[in-house]
Amino acid sequence: MEALRVGMLGGGVVGTGVARLLRDDAGRLAGRAGRGLELIRVAVRDGNKPRDPALPRALLTTDADALVQDPRVDVVVEVIGGIEPARRLILAALRAGKDVVTANKAVLAQHGDELFAAAHAAGRCLAFEASVGGGVPIIQALAQGLAANRVDSIQAILNGTSNFILTQMTEAGLDYPAALALAQQHGYAEADPTLDVDGSDAAHKLAILARLAFGLSVPGNAIERCGITQLDPLDFRFVRELGYVIKLLAEAWLLDDRLALHVEPTLVRRYAPLAEVRGPNNAIQVTGHAVGQTLFYGPGAGAMPTASAVVADLMSIASGSWPRVFAAGRIGLAEPRVRLRSAAEITSRFYLRCQVQERVGVLAEIDGILAQHKISIASVVQHEEHPDSSVPVVLLTHGANLGAMRHAVRQLDQRPSLVRPCVFFPIAE
Amino acid sequence: MEALRVGMLGGGVVGTGVARLLRDDAGRLAGRAGRGLELIRVAVRDGNKPRDPALPRALLTTDADALVQDPRVDVVVEVIGGIEPARRLILAALRAGKDVVTANKAVLAQHGDELFAAAHAAGRCLAFEASVGGGVPIIQALAQGLAANRVDSIQAILNGTSNFILTQMTEAGLDYPAALALAQQHGYAEADPTLDVDGSDAAHKLAILARLAFGLSVPGNAIERCGITQLDPLDFRFVRELGYVIKLLAEAWLLDDRLALHVEPTLVRRYAPLAEVRGPNNAIQVTGHAVGQTLFYGPGAGAMPTASAVVADLMSIASGSWPRVFAAGRIGLAEPRVRLRSAAEITSRFYLRCQVQERVGVLAEIDGILAQHKISIASVVQHEEHPDSSVPVVLLTHGANLGAMRHAVRQLDQRPSLVRPCVFFPIAE
Repeated sequence: MEALRVGMLGGGVVGTGVARLLRDDAGRLAGRAGRGLELIRVAVRDGNKPRDPALPRALLTTDADALVQDPRVDVVVEVIGGIEPARRLILAALRAGKDVVTANKAVLAQHGDELFAAAHAAGRCLAFEASVGGGVPIIQALAQGLAANRVDSIQAILNGTSNFILTQMTEAGLDYPAALALAQQHGYAEADPTLDVDGSDAAHKLAILARLAFGLSVPGNAIERCGITQLDPLDFRFVRELGYVIKLLAEAWLLDDRLALHVEPTLVRRYAPLAEVRGPNNAIQVTGHAVGQTLFYGPGAGAMPTASAVVADLMSIASGSWPRVFAAGRIGLAEPRVRLRSAAEITSRFYLRCQVQERVGVLAEIDGILAQHKISIASVVQHEEHPDSSVPVVLLTHGANLGAMRHAVRQLDQRPSLVRPCVFFPIAE
Repeated sequence: MEALRVGMLGGGVVGTGVARLLRDDAGRLAGRAGRGLELIRVAVRDGNKPRDPALPRALLTTDADALVQDPRVDVVVEVIGGIEPARRLILAALRAGKDVVTANKAVLAQHGDELFAAAHAAGRCLAFEASVGGGVPIIQALAQGLAANRVDSIQAILNGTSNFILTQMTEAGLDYPAALALAQQHGYAEADPTLDVDGSDAAHKLAILARLAFGLSVPGNAIERCGITQLDPLDFRFVRELGYVIKLLAEAWLLDDRLALHVEPTLVRRYAPLAEVRGPNNAIQVTGHAVGQTLFYGPGAGAMPTASAVVADLMSIASGSWPRVFAAGRIGLAEPRVRLRSAAEITSRFYLRCQVQERVGVLAEIDGILAQHKISIASVVQHEEHPDSSVPVVLLTHGANLGAMRHAVRQLDQRPSLVRPCVFFPIAE
């Protein structure tokens, strides 16, 4: 059988990783895929920049539009990232009759409807294993290995940068700026880390998982999210005493064909599988009605883990496997019956820290306000004075509604007896 | 497209789970697989036994041989287990032009060469997701999601019964008979638990993983294994003090095209992902040259998790996906270059407990014997007297060869100053 001819958009770190894997492991990959995988063209922005020997100058072009139309190219790998020109080039490649492999979560999260529809209309496939979870084969697992299940929930750590920072804040007691600086030193955070630490990157990935697992079409930017930049080392100490750690969890909960999605710092019980995910790793916990609770764990980013996912996609296109899964399962097309539920409707227990000046009577005041919103207190932890001479009062609530909790906290924040805004986190089940 | 017509061998707990999933979720499954999955015949031993409504009498037959030849059957599901008649029926089904889905680790481990060769010769496929890891889609992961990787090692908890027992011994301080009784009460251990607790079941599953991930053909019974029946609560206490837990690990290590395989109680550092696998769960840690370290976790047994895997296989046969992966990757055929390495050649650190009557001079004696085998001591932990008035001396070694360790222990066990046989475990990296 003829080799699968690959054209690649992008020659950065991931593109270089893909090129190296295709070059160094050609024989083994061909043995597993049933045919060779041949990289024949790579579109880069600057054709003169020195590159890895896996990207020889003869393969390079600066004309991405010509690459996606090139009749010799069977499949296009898109590893440039961002919205444009990625969106335009993916659409052009599909319309030119090429399958597309992409690692681009942003474009899938924001333009999923358009891209998946274009793929099905053209009778081609989109493969996107590398877009979520780095090297962890979670897309294959949801599309195939767990396909017999109705997925009931997903709870996931999807951003390696945030998880590295939270691990440092938990284990080394660093504050946020110090942990971020360390992440940047180690290459786990970019100079501008905004999208990673504000929850946007995780929200994009959650949108892709929600589309695949639940058939919900939701733009990544429409998912409620809260990042980690405001986290206070004080809370890391308190949650530890209570037997928890703080993780940036991306969650999806299905109830009666309505799906709630959010990304938020969340308390996870220590030693639970998700609590043990350290450093820049990712983990996705999937609960299915038949299988029960499963977890998929591994490196969430990096050149070679991402290349591992991209090349796996190329292999399953080469064998003809993924195109069949994609067409048969109408992968990426939304199911009209599934609708979005507001995250405000999510029910969980909560951790709440109120910073008070004077303890006498304050607990009754807090309790009264919470009770107005039908939130009951499960336990109260007293703490020593804070440097600014206010006193932290930490409460754990019984199950309550996120929307009610937000209203209650807004009301609490207006009380003169509370000297600083309250801090609260949901507690994962 | 016409429905895929399924004939099933076996109507026990797993068969009933498969039938229920196919009946209760027919619409959703057809939507994902691109065609219906229709259960048309089920071969059982006793046609008169009362069964779940998902197995109506009209589907039942006692003639398994006729089922596998039935021209109306497209694919045969084998969930009877054991070697015969499973082996004979799988071969007959393949030769009759049917794809086969099996949950049977024993027959794949012992007769893999014959069964996989027969499938490829017939141009059919064998799907076996349910044979390892219960509902955890590890077969799909190795065959597809991680296919771009050269797998360097697998470390896995593959037997839920043993893991439940070890969890009880670790967390509740039970001895082996009490923990086994509890496992039997909870339905996690059979009346005769031999194959689960002596390491055989895990060895069978490891043989299947080794065939898939490394291309090694090795009968499950040829894999060195040691079970958990002789474990002493004393060691659970000591390893805990040292920051470890004891897990029954199935391990595969590739070095220079030679693969070492073994199943053995092993120390795993507390809080490491594998250490946190509790109760009847399974977990498979796969290290690939590109992806790095990944872990797949979930329920290792049970009717519905196993049915989840069987039905996923049916769906990927219905879509045409797995037949292509199977043929392209020559799945299950051994690669002649990969050979078995003796487990004796494995290098690791070790935990060693010697039970001595009198401490004076004994440490020098132990050290001397270990040194003869080029094993050096990293640390020694003193302990209080044992009820029989002997004293346990616990040593951790530096990296040493398993074969050398066995020789040294054999020599130690002959010394009069050691009042009982030594206990030793490898320490996982």
